[in-house]
Amino acid sequence: MANAIEPIRWKSDRLELLDQRLLPDQLKYIECRTADQVADAIRDMAVRGAPAIGCAAAFGIALEPKESSYDILAKSRPTAVNLFWALERMRRAVDKKAEAEAIFAEDLAVNRAIGAHGAKLIPRGARILTYCNTGALATAGHGTALGVIRSARDKGISVIACETRPYLQGARLTAWECMQEGIFCNFITDNMAGHLMSRKEIDLVIVGADRIAANGDTANKIGTYTLAVLARRHALPFYVAAPLSTFDYSIADGSLIPIEERPASEVTGYRGQRWAPEGVVVRNPAFDVTPAELITAIICERGVVQAPTRERLQPLISTGV
Amino acid sequence: MANAIEPIRWKSDRLELLDQRLLPDQLKYIECRTADQVADAIRDMAVRGAPAIGCAAAFGIALEPKESSYDILAKSRPTAVNLFWALERMRRAVDKKAEAEAIFAEDLAVNRAIGAHGAKLIPRGARILTYCNTGALATAGHGTALGVIRSARDKGISVIACETRPYLQGARLTAWECMQEGIFCNFITDNMAGHLMSRKEIDLVIVGADRIAANGDTANKIGTYTLAVLARRHALPFYVAAPLSTFDYSIADGSLIPIEERPASEVTGYRGQRWAPEGVVVRNPAFDVTPAELITAIICERGVVQAPTRERLQPLISTGV
Repeated sequence: MANAIEPIRWKSDRLELLDQRLLPDQLKYIECRTADQVADAIRDMAVRGAPAIGCAAAFGIALEPKESSYDILAKSRPTAVNLFWALERMRRAVDKKAEAEAIFAEDLAVNRAIGAHGAKLIPRGARILTYCNTGALATAGHGTALGVIRSARDKGISVIACETRPYLQGARLTAWECMQEGIFCNFITDNMAGHLMSRKEIDLVIVGADRIAANGDTANKIGTYTLAVLARRHALPFYVAAPLSTFDYSIADGSLIPIEERPASEVTGYRGQRWAPEGVVVRNPAFDVTPAELITAIICERGVVQAPTRERLQPLISTGV
Repeated sequence: MANAIEPIRWKSDRLELLDQRLLPDQLKYIECRTADQVADAIRDMAVRGAPAIGCAAAFGIALEPKESSYDILAKSRPTAVNLFWALERMRRAVDKKAEAEAIFAEDLAVNRAIGAHGAKLIPRGARILTYCNTGALATAGHGTALGVIRSARDKGISVIACETRPYLQGARLTAWECMQEGIFCNFITDNMAGHLMSRKEIDLVIVGADRIAANGDTANKIGTYTLAVLARRHALPFYVAAPLSTFDYSIADGSLIPIEERPASEVTGYRGQRWAPEGVVVRNPAFDVTPAELITAIICERGVVQAPTRERLQPLISTGV
């Protein structure tokens, strides 16, 4: 499939990032010529999605290969480990531009491999619940969880997309990507997933990941854990699709993954429209941790790890990077 | 406690309904002089909350005690059974105005009794997750689940209020009611509840109900079922607080409760601000059903029914009306 949606365009002297904050209303690119500008785009979520953040950071170094660039980019967002993985690769590389281009090209290939492995798990006609955005927009192209759905589209599948409060990536990005490609999509609020499961309107759940600990515990967009608990109650498969660059084998389990808290303004309203009372105290954790025991399988570019544990993931990880 | 927030004001020749669609920005009343106007206010959610809907419908009949008024009001919303309960009482009454006033006065007294019974279940310093709005705004005054919280406020409790997509009653109404009364309130999106439970930041859950079947299965605002599943996983008490007018003993279990589907526009954005792509297919079930086995106890004006079953609820119900 052609990579029609291009969140990241590398122009050698500059990086063009599709400003995902403006979707689905406007298709507009931000031009970055410095590492600082790339770090701002990551922090402010013009570009988001763990693999896309990794690619953007790599190009940030390619634009401005100074020591301080690594620090600036490393501090842009704390949870997605792909960022640190990409910076580490860039640090070791001699030709920074060639390495950033390689990271980008590999991510696209990796996503297609994830899609091919994952599609084998998807039954014909499956009604697939997905969460946040894990599509072309979250990666160099194709996508992780949504990439699996793309790769399985000939099976007559349909998607249920949760809006993904507070930042609405499911609404603004996933529903939009599905519509762009003619994949049938039902759009719901996050709290409707349990009801649809109880009415047997969902066959499986597939999500992406921002960081996977050595034992398989998975940090992903806030709300993911709840879907895993619901899937378990309804005996539905719960799949995580992510590249090996999302694995953090320095971390034993999910309790050690840092969880970003983002600004209150994301929760109290949207753009100009506010619905919470002025002065209310807000919590805004951007991620939660799904314990490995709730994950049916993790799909990565090397294949599928059923019922992930440290022991089952170890062989994959040790040869992965 | 004085009933500071007045969602329903009866003026003998007219009914004044606080337009809850405009909260928390504006305090503005709608004047109703016909049953039609009251039915419109219920359908369009100017007044909402199962007990408040019952009271408003009763006053609708008092304003215009015609046969057709019963039909018009009965068709305004399908799930909350208090509506049908109130219309039935009004049909049997000779003095319609006196009966509507009695329904209103009794609801306030009933809520205070629920509060007193429920408060005994709340530990000192409890961090209480609640959902949607079940406060003064949802009733004749005081509230059901939020009434229990009000009655327990001297115990140094705090509230975690979920915003309650799509209609945002938790944000616009519950967080606002808490702030009006100086009850400490953390405000979150619905999908953060599981994360906070996993971090041991929630001690119990208490919600209201729109209809309780004879076996204790409970229809309530969409998303309630998910909270019950999460509470069970984390071994947290999950309480339902509701007056006996919410019980429907004509219905054996929750699968028979009609679930209202509301307009797509509630899901695709808020007021002028849209975030879902144009043309997307939307689901909007307004309620879900929590099976009795997930409910720790039901609190009503006659007391507390632990681990509700048809057998345990029967004595309560048969003497209740």
